[in-house]
Amino acid sequence: MAWRSALLIDPVASDDPREDFAETFRFFDPDEPALRVGDLSAQRGDGIFESLGVIDGHPQEVGPHLERLAHSAGLCDLPAPHLGQWRSAIARVAAHAGAGENVMKLLLSRGVEGQPIPTAWITLASAPDNTRSRRDGVDVVTLDRGHALDVPARAPWLQLGAKTLSYAVNMAAIREAHRRGADDAVFVSSDGFVLEAPTATVLLRLGDRFVTPEPSAGILHGTTQISVFSYLGRRGVETAYETVPTATLVDADAAWLLSSVRLAAPIAAVDGVAKAIDRALTDELNAYLLSPRD
Amino acid sequence: MAWRSALLIDPVASDDPREDFAETFRFFDPDEPALRVGDLSAQRGDGIFESLGVIDGHPQEVGPHLERLAHSAGLCDLPAPHLGQWRSAIARVAAHAGAGENVMKLLLSRGVEGQPIPTAWITLASAPDNTRSRRDGVDVVTLDRGHALDVPARAPWLQLGAKTLSYAVNMAAIREAHRRGADDAVFVSSDGFVLEAPTATVLLRLGDRFVTPEPSAGILHGTTQISVFSYLGRRGVETAYETVPTATLVDADAAWLLSSVRLAAPIAAVDGVAKAIDRALTDELNAYLLSPRD
Repeated sequence: MAWRSALLIDPVASDDPREDFAETFRFFDPDEPALRVGDLSAQRGDGIFESLGVIDGHPQEVGPHLERLAHSAGLCDLPAPHLGQWRSAIARVAAHAGAGENVMKLLLSRGVEGQPIPTAWITLASAPDNTRSRRDGVDVVTLDRGHALDVPARAPWLQLGAKTLSYAVNMAAIREAHRRGADDAVFVSSDGFVLEAPTATVLLRLGDRFVTPEPSAGILHGTTQISVFSYLGRRGVETAYETVPTATLVDADAAWLLSSVRLAAPIAAVDGVAKAIDRALTDELNAYLLSPRD
Repeated sequence: MAWRSALLIDPVASDDPREDFAETFRFFDPDEPALRVGDLSAQRGDGIFESLGVIDGHPQEVGPHLERLAHSAGLCDLPAPHLGQWRSAIARVAAHAGAGENVMKLLLSRGVEGQPIPTAWITLASAPDNTRSRRDGVDVVTLDRGHALDVPARAPWLQLGAKTLSYAVNMAAIREAHRRGADDAVFVSSDGFVLEAPTATVLLRLGDRFVTPEPSAGILHGTTQISVFSYLGRRGVETAYETVPTATLVDADAAWLLSSVRLAAPIAAVDGVAKAIDRALTDELNAYLLSPRD
């Protein structure tokens, strides 16, 4: 991973009428210290984020990512982001991307403890080479997320539907997958339903239908999954959001993990049981996902 | 809150034989940027921490806090901290405390993404005035932690027994308590057992016995609670770790939240039902907790 650019944003109120935000932006060197230790992102993982793919200089799906950022902000009692300011910042940073695949992160923290202003920044870095995951797939293990399917809706303080910076569990799940000889994890509810991967959405092919676990207070609505559903829909393929028992993941005719940077990675094994990879469709999906999308 | 001091630590291996660590420490201005945006504490809440009280210059219970830091590091696959180096750093920072109550935070993050070295730092700040909480108590609401009592032990990747920087849920629970007109929350398991408060341990008096929920993979072993148990034990009072049904919190003869900085805060109400405060014992406990402890 190599840094391409980094921009600090001085967040304005969501109804700020200005059209030019230049004076609220400041490029900085990401290898130099930029955050104070009092920042609640570092002290308590108290903030939210989004990761976007940037392909040949084009930031993918900016609208859906900003919508989700705003949704997460609401769930976390953070001030609503000014979407025009963020759009402008994203465009400025993307201009530093050059050719190839990059990953852009949008971050919004609750700010420095005791001060009322959020901290906001964007980073841009070269993306890891995901060729192999896209072609040969990923082996996954299922891991209990610890709660029943209906819990997140009745316990919103658990913030399970927000993309927060309190992401240590997601990283620990991936380490546990590696310990078990797999590449990635799929979280399942304690009552036996498929949720999502630590950093991706699960997509299943069941016969002619494409199904993803219904987004809810506990399952992030995947921007890449939305994009894939719209692509499949235009081709007349049936897509559906459903409650998916864990056994269906094992039995599905094919399955993928969808995310903004790795894109469509076919699932090659679930808990050690091999799964057929639909290479033609996977290649087609990734060709689409690598094309400019808004 | 006013900063008193801040120290960056260059962590050494846990078996480093040196006796003087001066060259691994660097005091810095906590109002100036000190962390890179690539630091995984800020990007993903991926790290651990401890909060200590520092009373009239004396850091309280350094040993138990360092033990717990090492325990959290193990649970999170972080390199074991060198306890001698941390002790030395704590002593240097505590020298800047002066009179009165201060709060010291020890932080250990996984470091900058893609680099193998953890980031470590200590901050020291004046403590908030907790006189009123200690005297008049705190009203609490019970909030579902989302999982059954036995989940954390069989799903260690959820890291529920580690004091991680992914602390946004704890902060969201306290905001939810405020929304409900209370001061603080007590987490209960989805199968109806008392766990802990977002930043404190629950202590109950049941007749002549003092009981706290049994520490487990899902309940942090409280350093202040250990200290109180040892104090009560020396006075011949019976103390016990038990599985505590939620109803017992409501029915207990008295209850407290114990933590390193607020110390013993009597619980004055649970979900709107008032609870008698044992002021004499509370004052006695806080006098003890404010005395120098190692």
